[in-house]
Amino acid sequence: MRLATVRVPGGTKAVLIEGGEAVELGYSDVGALLANPSWESELNSTGTVHAVDSLEYATLIPLPSKIICVGHNYRNHIKEMGRELPSHPTLFAKFSEALIGANDVIYLSRESQMYDWEAELGVIVGKTLRSCTEEEARDGIAGFTVINDVTARDWQNRTLQWLQGKTFEGSTPVGAHLVTLDVDTVINEGLDLSCEVNGEQVQHAVTSDLLFDPVFLVSYISKILTLRPGDVIATGTPGGVGHARNPQRYLKDGDILVTKIEGVGELRNICKSA
Amino acid sequence: MRLATVRVPGGTKAVLIEGGEAVELGYSDVGALLANPSWESELNSTGTVHAVDSLEYATLIPLPSKIICVGHNYRNHIKEMGRELPSHPTLFAKFSEALIGANDVIYLSRESQMYDWEAELGVIVGKTLRSCTEEEARDGIAGFTVINDVTARDWQNRTLQWLQGKTFEGSTPVGAHLVTLDVDTVINEGLDLSCEVNGEQVQHAVTSDLLFDPVFLVSYISKILTLRPGDVIATGTPGGVGHARNPQRYLKDGDILVTKIEGVGELRNICKSA
Repeated sequence: MRLATVRVPGGTKAVLIEGGEAVELGYSDVGALLANPSWESELNSTGTVHAVDSLEYATLIPLPSKIICVGHNYRNHIKEMGRELPSHPTLFAKFSEALIGANDVIYLSRESQMYDWEAELGVIVGKTLRSCTEEEARDGIAGFTVINDVTARDWQNRTLQWLQGKTFEGSTPVGAHLVTLDVDTVINEGLDLSCEVNGEQVQHAVTSDLLFDPVFLVSYISKILTLRPGDVIATGTPGGVGHARNPQRYLKDGDILVTKIEGVGELRNICKSA
Repeated sequence: MRLATVRVPGGTKAVLIEGGEAVELGYSDVGALLANPSWESELNSTGTVHAVDSLEYATLIPLPSKIICVGHNYRNHIKEMGRELPSHPTLFAKFSEALIGANDVIYLSRESQMYDWEAELGVIVGKTLRSCTEEEARDGIAGFTVINDVTARDWQNRTLQWLQGKTFEGSTPVGAHLVTLDVDTVINEGLDLSCEVNGEQVQHAVTSDLLFDPVFLVSYISKILTLRPGDVIATGTPGGVGHARNPQRYLKDGDILVTKIEGVGELRNICKSA
C-alpha cells in the first residue's frame, strides 16, 4: 500500500495510491491520517481521484512530533572507516522546518558552503509506543519512505554536536510515498539504496547491512520517550558522502540529487543557490 | 509581566499573574497564546480568577515546535575546565515528551542510573524569526523562564551525540512563569542562577557570564531555520553538575531539586524512582 501527501488548491491532502490513481482521503496529510488510531479503516475512501502523473508531492509528514536520525549505522561503512561496531545507536535530531517534498528544490543557504548528501531509509511510526518490545515495535511501524538527510558539513562540524548542520531550513526531502513492506524483507533480504548526483552513483548499499535495524531502533528509542504516529526515524547513511571523498565534493547550484530505495521510491531534487 | 500554564479541570489554561491573582486567558496554554501574533492585546482578560497559592503548574509550553539547548556556555566553567572559549555555540535538541511542570515529580527511569542536574536560563521566543538581526532577535524574545535540563549521563555518553541522554520522558521541568525582563538586565547586569539538591547549593552562576547571550543565540539559530512563537531555548548550565564531582553524584529517589533564577522564579521537583 502507498500513501502520500500531495498539494491541492488551498493546502494538502493525504492520498491513497493504487495503480495509476490517487484517491483523496479525508485528512490534510499522512501525519494527520496516522494520528487516527483506526487509520487503516479510513482507506476505503471515495474522495477526489487524481492521476498519479499529475501529483505534486508535499513532504510526507509535514509536522511530525519528532524526527530522530541515526548515525554510523551501515556495517560496511563503519568497517571501511576502520572503526569498531558501536554498542549503541548514535541518535540526533532534526526539526520539521528542514522537511521538503520528494521533488522540491533544495535551496542551498548562503550560510553554508558544504551541503552534502546522505541517502537514508526512513521509518514512519504508526502507533503510540513506549518501552515496547521488538514485537510491538514491528507492529508499530506504519511503513517506509526515502529520505536524503542533506547536511551542511561546515555547520555540522562547528562543534561536537551535529544538530546545527542537520536541520537547515528546507534541506531534507522525504517521500514521495509511505510504503507498507514486510519488515523482514527490509531487514533480512535487504533493499537496494542509492544516491546519484547528476546521474553519477555516489552511494550504494543494501538495507540488510544496517547494524541497528528499524525494529531495534523503534524499540530502543521507545525506552527513552514515547514514539507517536507520524514520527520519522532516518536510519543512517552508507559510505560515499561528498565530504569523505578525495577531493571533497559538495552540492552546488543546478545539481540534480536522486535518492532511490528499491520498492520504496525515489526522490529527485534540484539544488539551487538561495 | 508573568504568564503561566496551569492545570484546570479538563485540561490547562494560560493565565496572567498579577499580585496574588491569576486570571485565565482564552488559551489552553502559553504556547497557544504566543501563537496569536497580537497576543499582547489578549492580556486584558476578564476570565476566571485563581489565587496564586492554589495554582498547579503545567509545563510552561507543552508543545513547542522546537526545544534547542546550548552546551558549554558559561565562561567561568569553560575556563575552569581548561578549555578555550569556543567560536560557535554547541546546539542540541530535546523533544516535548521530556517536559514537566515546575513542581512535578521527576520520575527516574530504570533505564538510567545517572540522572544529573543542569540549571539553566530559558528563553521563550515570541515572534516568527528567520535570519534575523540581533535587534530583531531582542524584540522577538517574549520572556524568560527557569529550566533544569536534567540529563541521563550514562545515555548521553553512550555515543558522541548527546540527544538520547537529554530527552528522557518527563525529565525536564520548565516554568513556573514566563517573565518579561529587560534583556540588558539578563545579559549585562546578570541574574543569579542556582541549583540545590536537598538544600545544598550545587550550582551557582550569574547570567552575565553567558558566552553566547540570549540575543546572539536567537539570531544565530534563526540563520539555520525559522524560530516560531513558543520555541524554547535552554541557554546552558554552569559548573557544579553531579557527573563532574569527585565522587560523582546523581539524583536518587526522594531527592528534592530546586532551581532558581533571581527575578524569574523557582522550580522545585522531587525525584522518584519509576
